[in-house]
Amino acid sequence: MNTLISNPTPNDKTTDLFDQKSSSNVDVLIIGAGPAGLMAAASLTRYGVHNIRIVDKRATKIFTGQADGLNPRSLEVLQALGIGNQVMAEANELGEICFWNPNQSGRIHRTARIPDTIPEISRYRQSTVHQGRIERIMIDAIAAWSSSSTNVNTEEGINQTHKKRPITVERAVCPDLIKLPSPNASALSDSLEDRVIVRLRHLSQAEAKPAQFSPLAPDGLYRSNMFEDDALDASPQGFPTKEVLEEVKCRYVIGADGARSWTRGAIGFKLEGESSDFFWGVVDGIPATDFPDIRMRCCIHSAEKGSVMIIPREKDLIRLYIQIPQPEPGKRPNRADVTPEKLMTAAKAIFEPYTINIPKIEWFTCYEIGQRLADHWSWNNRIFIAGDACHTHSPKAGQGMNTSMADTFNLTWKIAHVLQRKSDPKILSTYEIERSQVASELIEFDQKFAALFSGKPAKDVLDVTGISLQEFQQTMERGNQFASGTSVNYQPSTIVAKPGSPHNYKVLNKPELASKLPIGPRLYSHQVVCLSDAKPYHLADISPADGKWRLIIFGGNISKYSGCKVRLNSLAKFLGEDQNSPIKKFTPINQSTDSVIDTITILASKRTELEPDDFLEVLRPLKGKHGFRSYQKIFTDDESYHQGHGQAYKKYGIDPKVGCVVLVRPDQYVSLITDINDHQGIAGFFDDFMVTQNSN
Amino acid sequence: MNTLISNPTPNDKTTDLFDQKSSSNVDVLIIGAGPAGLMAAASLTRYGVHNIRIVDKRATKIFTGQADGLNPRSLEVLQALGIGNQVMAEANELGEICFWNPNQSGRIHRTARIPDTIPEISRYRQSTVHQGRIERIMIDAIAAWSSSSTNVNTEEGINQTHKKRPITVERAVCPDLIKLPSPNASALSDSLEDRVIVRLRHLSQAEAKPAQFSPLAPDGLYRSNMFEDDALDASPQGFPTKEVLEEVKCRYVIGADGARSWTRGAIGFKLEGESSDFFWGVVDGIPATDFPDIRMRCCIHSAEKGSVMIIPREKDLIRLYIQIPQPEPGKRPNRADVTPEKLMTAAKAIFEPYTINIPKIEWFTCYEIGQRLADHWSWNNRIFIAGDACHTHSPKAGQGMNTSMADTFNLTWKIAHVLQRKSDPKILSTYEIERSQVASELIEFDQKFAALFSGKPAKDVLDVTGISLQEFQQTMERGNQFASGTSVNYQPSTIVAKPGSPHNYKVLNKPELASKLPIGPRLYSHQVVCLSDAKPYHLADISPADGKWRLIIFGGNISKYSGCKVRLNSLAKFLGEDQNSPIKKFTPINQSTDSVIDTITILASKRTELEPDDFLEVLRPLKGKHGFRSYQKIFTDDESYHQGHGQAYKKYGIDPKVGCVVLVRPDQYVSLITDINDHQGIAGFFDDFMVTQNSN
Repeated sequence: MNTLISNPTPNDKTTDLFDQKSSSNVDVLIIGAGPAGLMAAASLTRYGVHNIRIVDKRATKIFTGQADGLNPRSLEVLQALGIGNQVMAEANELGEICFWNPNQSGRIHRTARIPDTIPEISRYRQSTVHQGRIERIMIDAIAAWSSSSTNVNTEEGINQTHKKRPITVERAVCPDLIKLPSPNASALSDSLEDRVIVRLRHLSQAEAKPAQFSPLAPDGLYRSNMFEDDALDASPQGFPTKEVLEEVKCRYVIGADGARSWTRGAIGFKLEGESSDFFWGVVDGIPATDFPDIRMRCCIHSAEKGSVMIIPREKDLIRLYIQIPQPEPGKRPNRADVTPEKLMTAAKAIFEPYTINIPKIEWFTCYEIGQRLADHWSWNNRIFIAGDACHTHSPKAGQGMNTSMADTFNLTWKIAHVLQRKSDPKILSTYEIERSQVASELIEFDQKFAALFSGKPAKDVLDVTGISLQEFQQTMERGNQFASGTSVNYQPSTIVAKPGSPHNYKVLNKPELASKLPIGPRLYSHQVVCLSDAKPYHLADISPADGKWRLIIFGGNISKYSGCKVRLNSLAKFLGEDQNSPIKKFTPINQSTDSVIDTITILASKRTELEPDDFLEVLRPLKGKHGFRSYQKIFTDDESYHQGHGQAYKKYGIDPKVGCVVLVRPDQYVSLITDINDHQGIAGFFDDFMVTQNSN
Repeated sequence: MNTLISNPTPNDKTTDLFDQKSSSNVDVLIIGAGPAGLMAAASLTRYGVHNIRIVDKRATKIFTGQADGLNPRSLEVLQALGIGNQVMAEANELGEICFWNPNQSGRIHRTARIPDTIPEISRYRQSTVHQGRIERIMIDAIAAWSSSSTNVNTEEGINQTHKKRPITVERAVCPDLIKLPSPNASALSDSLEDRVIVRLRHLSQAEAKPAQFSPLAPDGLYRSNMFEDDALDASPQGFPTKEVLEEVKCRYVIGADGARSWTRGAIGFKLEGESSDFFWGVVDGIPATDFPDIRMRCCIHSAEKGSVMIIPREKDLIRLYIQIPQPEPGKRPNRADVTPEKLMTAAKAIFEPYTINIPKIEWFTCYEIGQRLADHWSWNNRIFIAGDACHTHSPKAGQGMNTSMADTFNLTWKIAHVLQRKSDPKILSTYEIERSQVASELIEFDQKFAALFSGKPAKDVLDVTGISLQEFQQTMERGNQFASGTSVNYQPSTIVAKPGSPHNYKVLNKPELASKLPIGPRLYSHQVVCLSDAKPYHLADISPADGKWRLIIFGGNISKYSGCKVRLNSLAKFLGEDQNSPIKKFTPINQSTDSVIDTITILASKRTELEPDDFLEVLRPLKGKHGFRSYQKIFTDDESYHQGHGQAYKKYGIDPKVGCVVLVRPDQYVSLITDINDHQGIAGFFDDFMVTQNSN
């Protein structure tokens, strides 16, 4: 029945992927188009890697339900990619967490409030919007970036197959066989024998029926958050009339195919961990209620009827997490008992004496709490798994979508730099090191969090049969820090120069020069004022996720301290002229000065004491054949006309008499802090893993 | 040759306006699809008036050039309509104005800097983006709002012809005849004899050639700010093969057809005023230059070579306004001398010793400075003219597009309320009164501004042959206030209750209760915190331009002062239950409590001292058959977790012991300030012009 073809001919006019000769020979094959897979495709296309494919076994995207939490770090990442405003325009920011517990007579009442996002942790707040909207925005971004000619990578040999046709998710396509090359094969080899071969099965129309309810079909579930731009995807058409097989030859494979990952199984990795005996139900909809805190995130522990968590969402929607009465130890609840009606009956009992009714249930599900972790994340740095394929846990802390997107955001710039021959492939090893550490912390947090939440609470005073309210609230507060995604702190490695990293012998690495700017976490964004246009900018907005390293030069107060001026000029001279300058060594010929390592200079002088031509060309390079100026390169830590003073030096703990250099990875994590005079340290850091280009 | 048909049959498959039986019988016909006409169509559809048509004689929209300045008030209006974020994402905010003048030896140097937008004047800043993008965003909004079922007006008799098909601009359509009804005819009459009849000429393909260069044709002018979503409009098709005439019967007509307005001429109004002898050229493009302030708005006066104004725009574009040497008095420059090359030669001389080159000129034009004003703005409150049809002036102060959009934004809520039988037609008289006042002020400002700018400057010290630098700078600073659009202060009228208004005898009108919140200007927006979700909101964002009156109740500190609590409850009781309550009298049956007059309650108490059910139902009404709660109704003037304290009471000058009621028009202008106890005054204000509905 099935035909195995490596370059199949079309059997249906709409399966136009077959038009592309290169389609069976890709730089990156992404398996799975959930948040992890879409983030992989979006960030790769953003970085100029366009010879990729992304496939998903589902016939349509997600329209409703599923994950709904976006933490501040995810919003930072989406903003850095250029799609944050779109997401935030649709999302609901969360304001406050309220704790409701029984009083002495058993009636629930509000016992405490804490801010939902810890103040000062990020410029964004914990927000909610359903996964389908995030997916839609990323799908549109992938199409736009992959078809935009401005993103074409001019590097030869790797991404030569860029087409203007937008990259789209190929749906109803399953991998069913994998063939591994020699473990020593190079991804950059042009021999097809060195590729990972994945056989893809294009499902027939009959097989490709949407696994979820069609939102256009009358299935009894109302979907108020269907958007018009989703309408086409809701009734997919154009699948082959019979199943088709093809072989795809891949430099890299990213398996982002969920908790039951086919990729993980195919390369023999395992998900390890345990399930608990805690079961929860989830219901989405717009409530009619007299409960006063329905627009707050609430943790409601009733005296006898179990617990509910409220998540206020976009468009007056809420999500309720409802505890399902625990059956006898070791037994599972009867699935037939988990209907939306029964879940609402349980919720109503917990809310008493308040009333709550959800006239139209938009989505519901139930789950068993459990925590599992993959034993490996990468096969020889050629095949990577990410997202739910690596870690599963309970959804209540809203970490699934966030951690999954963060996995591939960590991975893709590394793959892009290797494909673009900017970096040695050894940087790929940091993916598993960095992300499995985060996943372990997540699992540990979730075990504690889920157990606490599922436990029976104490009354207002500590009760030996329950959980201390104080302990619960403290765990929530600590959890909040973790859940924000901003506490990730990558360990020492080739690309994180701190004690223990292989760089120590080469670089001065003086973290004390920016005492409040730790190495390992993402760069916290403060406001600075641009010399060219007098406007305030967030540092994060002038260092977007465009695949560039950022060399941030805190030059100090050069108008007051002549030493600062001398040091800054000396560094600029080194960067612009010295043969050991990483900018000169690692920028491909014919590319602009700032295309690989982009400098941002931030002075502690008053803006009006400086003129743009005080600075050497390398710090504000000209672009293109006409010599247009780059304006957003030189900044001051000064008062703005309308948005106050960013106080960046003070908040980063940098002395305006001394200054420092901060090196930031393309994914915004801080790699190195050193002295402005440490030219050789800066050069040495890059020398360790960057690929020298033709002399420039 | 021409056929006059009142309900023409299609002669071309794409002229599908003929499908609509109602198309020749409209509530509002808008003539002209520039900023004034599009703002009219956008705001009318936003208010639920969908039986409208908008026609334009040009075959395509504007793609480049033309107006480019958006003042803070325009951004407030666009934001209130719901499209501000889109505009601001594309626009370039201006940072600083720099003055460059010759020093003693004649070399230009920077003599002063001022902030481009006066601090604290608005939450938005003066910005630039070309008119074509504003038009595109409004065109898309009109299509979305007119086809969205949520905007359907349920009032019977007027807007019964709402179609789900989006309203689009009908291009290459000219009015060529107008037939006026009896001056006493009512717009609301159902007799077609009472309509204004406009004959429209649908141009044939041959006539409809775009008047501007086609952006897709190789015309030698490069257009870097063409956007993909404009591509379809750039090569218009589907015009009739021969000219077609039709008659449209209109309740109202808005003539927004530019400085040479056909509408103005057809009803016999005149544009009066004079031209000057000052001539200027305009050039748009991306510059290569070493001039340090190229990203600032600059006024450069050279010693001998004339003046240049720099406007930094989106995408590294700039606009240069270049003074053209004045010919002999009374003579005009030779048009052949005004080429982009010659303009740039003049500019280069003024910039010396700096160099400037614009490799690709995107657009250029030249104009003669002159100020003209229409003698009348309205024919019997049935036909209105707006925008350039009413006022023309020099473009340098960036007021054209802003004032034009403000004209129709002032007019359309009044037309909507009359059509929806909420208001007596007499409110329409306020349009000419309010907007001609603004236009007069604009003309006066522009005469002063243009003369100053075109004059020869003094050197560093006052020079009798030139203009005092100090005088120039002071005029710029005063002009900046005016140009922001925020200083508009409407005079007393039926809908602005201040001394001189016909309301004085009925309402207490106690402006001293909000000493820093003047009656007449638009409501300045401060931040308040929502009781339901603990989040900060700008007052402007909770009172969007949705066609509703806003009754803002500053209830005072009700947790501290029992008098405040008593007064608030008494007002709420009056509004919710009394037969004289304007909410009860003027809300149509079957519409929600807040559909005509929306209350917003702002307390001076701590948020955590209040509970939502402290407030009577009318202040936080339930919506729809399921009784979903309105959450964004009750606010406190309190600290937020992440965005500080709005200090609204203090900034408005309201005493937390006393409070007050502030009544705000649907276009955000303040109508009335009175005592919370002044129930009869509030009722009396509305009684004067609102239409009593069936008992509710």
